[in-house]
Amino acid sequence: MLPNVSQLELEHAHGDTLTIWFNRPETRNALSQDMADELAAVLEALPRQQYIRFVVLRGRGGTFCAGGDLKQFKQVFQAGDQAERGDIVSFNAKFGRLLAAVEALPQLFVVAIEGAAMAGGLGLSCVADVVLTTADAKFALTEVTLGIPPAQIAPVVVRRIGASEARRLLLTAQRFDGVEAGRLGFAHYVENSAAALDERLHALLLQARRGAPGAIALTKQIIATSDRLSPREQVQFAAERFADALLGEEAREGLAAFSEKRSPRWAAMPTSTGEQ
Amino acid sequence: MLPNVSQLELEHAHGDTLTIWFNRPETRNALSQDMADELAAVLEALPRQQYIRFVVLRGRGGTFCAGGDLKQFKQVFQAGDQAERGDIVSFNAKFGRLLAAVEALPQLFVVAIEGAAMAGGLGLSCVADVVLTTADAKFALTEVTLGIPPAQIAPVVVRRIGASEARRLLLTAQRFDGVEAGRLGFAHYVENSAAALDERLHALLLQARRGAPGAIALTKQIIATSDRLSPREQVQFAAERFADALLGEEAREGLAAFSEKRSPRWAAMPTSTGEQ
Amino acid sequence: MLPNVSQLELEHAHGDTLTIWFNRPETRNALSQDMADELAAVLEALPRQQYIRFVVLRGRGGTFCAGGDLKQFKQVFQAGDQAERGDIVSFNAKFGRLLAAVEALPQLFVVAIEGAAMAGGLGLSCVADVVLTTADAKFALTEVTLGIPPAQIAPVVVRRIGASEARRLLLTAQRFDGVEAGRLGFAHYVENSAAALDERLHALLLQARRGAPGAIALTKQIIATSDRLSPREQVQFAAERFADALLGEEAREGLAAFSEKRSPRWAAMPTSTGEQ
Repeated sequence: MLPNVSQLELEHAHGDTLTIWFNRPETRNALSQDMADELAAVLEALPRQQYIRFVVLRGRGGTFCAGGDLKQFKQVFQAGDQAERGDIVSFNAKFGRLLAAVEALPQLFVVAIEGAAMAGGLGLSCVADVVLTTADAKFALTEVTLGIPPAQIAPVVVRRIGASEARRLLLTAQRFDGVEAGRLGFAHYVENSAAALDERLHALLLQARRGAPGAIALTKQIIATSDRLSPREQVQFAAERFADALLGEEAREGLAAFSEKRSPRWAAMPTSTGEQ
Repeated sequence: MLPNVSQLELEHAHGDTLTIWFNRPETRNALSQDMADELAAVLEALPRQQYIRFVVLRGRGGTFCAGGDLKQFKQVFQAGDQAERGDIVSFNAKFGRLLAAVEALPQLFVVAIEGAAMAGGLGLSCVADVVLTTADAKFALTEVTLGIPPAQIAPVVVRRIGASEARRLLLTAQRFDGVEAGRLGFAHYVENSAAALDERLHALLLQARRGAPGAIALTKQIIATSDRLSPREQVQFAAERFADALLGEEAREGLAAFSEKRSPRWAAMPTSTGEQ
Repeated sequence: MLPNVSQLELEHAHGDTLTIWFNRPETRNALSQDMADELAAVLEALPRQQYIRFVVLRGRGGTFCAGGDLKQFKQVFQAGDQAERGDIVSFNAKFGRLLAAVEALPQLFVVAIEGAAMAGGLGLSCVADVVLTTADAKFALTEVTLGIPPAQIAPVVVRRIGASEARRLLLTAQRFDGVEAGRLGFAHYVENSAAALDERLHALLLQARRGAPGAIALTKQIIATSDRLSPREQVQFAAERFADALLGEEAREGLAAFSEKRSPRWAAMPTSTGEQ
C-alpha cells in the first residue's frame, strides 16, 4: 500500500507506472517539510510495490519545484533562537537520506521538469535515472546567496555533472535554462514544449518496458556500488548479480524470446510479500 | 611470444604496432568464449613484448563486435539445468578480469569501431585509451532486454561517460549511433567512412610516437591509481614515478632532444627479459 | 600579510579581489622553482586574509604559463649525476602539494588564460573553481614527449575532465586550442579576445559577490570531501556544515534579506586573527 498524501498527488497509469506530482502549485511546489516527509514515505513503500515498474516525479501548475520553503524554514529555525544545533543537523540529514532513497529504488526513476528546478528540486533530479526538461525551464543553486551551503545537494551535483561545472555553479549561484541544463548533463532530453515533454516521456517508457524489471534493479545496484568497491570486489559483486539473474525466470524468458525472435513478456517483480 | 590464435588475427606493422582483429565475421564477431579466451591470452603476453608500443583492436568484415555469443551462451548455461551457480560466477568474473587486463596494459590501447559495438564489445572500448568510430556504427547495451544485467560492463561505462548517461543507457537499452557515441564520450574521434577511420588511426599513432614508451606506461599507472589512493598517497605515488622516469634513459634523451631542438629517438622498452 | 614577491605581481582591486600575476614574460611565464615557491607562499597566507574573497591567477605578457622551466630543470637534475632520487621525489611532491593548496583555499579561485597553458600551467587551471580562456590560447600536456610522466598533473586532469579524455590527451600529448578546451571541460568560458576575457571576468565576480563568503568556503569543503567519504559519512558531514552556517551571521542576514526582498550585505570573513 502507498501512504495517504495531501501535498502530493499519486497517479497510476498503464498498470506499471506511478506518477508522483508535487501538488502545492500556489507555492510553486516549494519543498516544505510536510511535502518532503510525504515523498520519503512514498519512497519507503515503493520497493514493495512490485507492480510499479516506473516512477515519474513532476510538478503540478507548470513548475517542477522552486526549491526549499524559505518562509517555513525561517519560522522553524529562527523563531526566537529556539533552534538547537542537533535539530538542524537532523533536519538537513533527513534530506540527504531522501536523496539516497531515490537512488536506492529498484524501479526506474524519471524526473520531468517544467518551469523551474531550484536548489532541492534540482538536487532531486540529480539522483534520477532519466531527466527530461523543457528548454525554457529555469535552474539555479542559489543557497550561497542566502548564506548557507547547498549541503546535501553539492555531492549529488558533483556526481551528476562532474566536479568542474559543479564548483562553478554551486559557488557562483549562476542561473541557467533547460538548454544549458542539457549541455551540462543535468537533463538527458530537452524539449520545446510541455506537449513535446509528454511525448518524450511516453516514448521513453515504451523503450524502457523492453527491459526486465529484475535485471534493471540489479543493474542499478551494480552502478550504485561501482565507485564504492575495489576493482576486485567490483568484479565479484557484479558476477554474483549476473548469476542471480541468469538462474532466474527473466533470463529464461529473455533468452527464449531472443532465440524465438519474439518480444519477451516480463512478469512484475515477485509479489510474494503480498504487500500490494 | 604471442600465443597462437584462430578466432583472432594478429597483424604487425611499422615494427611497433600490433593490430588484433576479431576474426569471426560470419557471426559479426560475436564474443564467443573461445575468442575471449584468446584475447585474454594475447593480453597476458603483451606486457613482455617490449617492441610493441601500440595495440589496436578491430573487427574483420566491417563489424567491430556484435556483443556476446547468445547461442553459445544459451547452450552452456541452460542445457538441462546443468549450470552450477559457481560456474556462472566464474564465467562472468573472467570477462571482468579481461577488461581489467586491458586497462593494466603498459602499451597505448586503441579501439577502432566500424559497423557495431554492442554489449561486451562496447565494454571493451570503454577501457581503451583512445576510441575511433565511424559515424554510422550502431551501439547499444541491450542486456536488460534479455533479462540479465550488463554486470561487468556497467562499471566501465560509468567510468567512461559518467553515472548520469550510464544510468540512462544501461537501464533503457536505448540504441545510438557513432555521432551520439562521440557526444556521449564513448568515442574520441568520429569519422565519416572506413577510409577516414584508417587515416585518423594513422595520424593518431604518428602523434603518439612522439611520446616515450616508458613515460606513457608510467602515466597509465598514475591515471589508473588516481581514484584509488588518498590525496596524500597519490602525491607520493606520482612523485616516485616521476623520479623513476627522470633518472632513466628516456628523460636523458628527451631533455637532450629538447635543448638541441631535435626530435627525440625512443628505444623500445627494455627487452632484457628475452621474451620476444 | 602577503609575502614579498619578485617572480609574481600581486594586484588588489575592489577591496575584495587579489590578482596574482605570473610575471616572467621573458620566459612566457615558465614555472620556475622560485615562481612556484612564491605562489606556494602566497597560497599559504591567503586563508588568513579574510578581506580577500576572490583570487584570480593570470600571466603578464599575454601568456598564462608555458609549463615547467626546462632549462632550469635540466641544470638542477642532470648536472653531473649529482641528483639524488630523494631530492627528485621531494621536488615533484612539492608541486602536488601546491595543487592541493589551491583546492583547499576558502576563497573562490579563478584562472584566466591567454596565450598558452602548458603542462603545469594547465595543471593549475584544473584545480581552479572557474576557468576562463581566450579561444586562440594553446594547450598541451607534452610531458611524455620529454620522457617523463605528467605525474602530479595527471590526477587533477582526470578529476577535471574525466578519465576518458584525460587518457587520450596525457598519453598522446595532442595539442588543442581554447575552443577545444571549452568542449573538453578545461575551461568554463571561452572568449574571442583579451578584452572579452576581462569583461567576462568582471561579470563573473559581480555574480559571485551575491554569495556569502563563509557559505562559499563551506560549500568548497563539502565538494572536496564528496569523493572521499562513504555516503553515510557524507550526509553527516554536510549536515554539520549546514548547521554551522544556519546558526551563523550570514544565514541571519541572507534569510532576512530574502524576506525583505533586498540584496544581502555580506561582511568579510571573521578577521579576529588580526593577520591583515
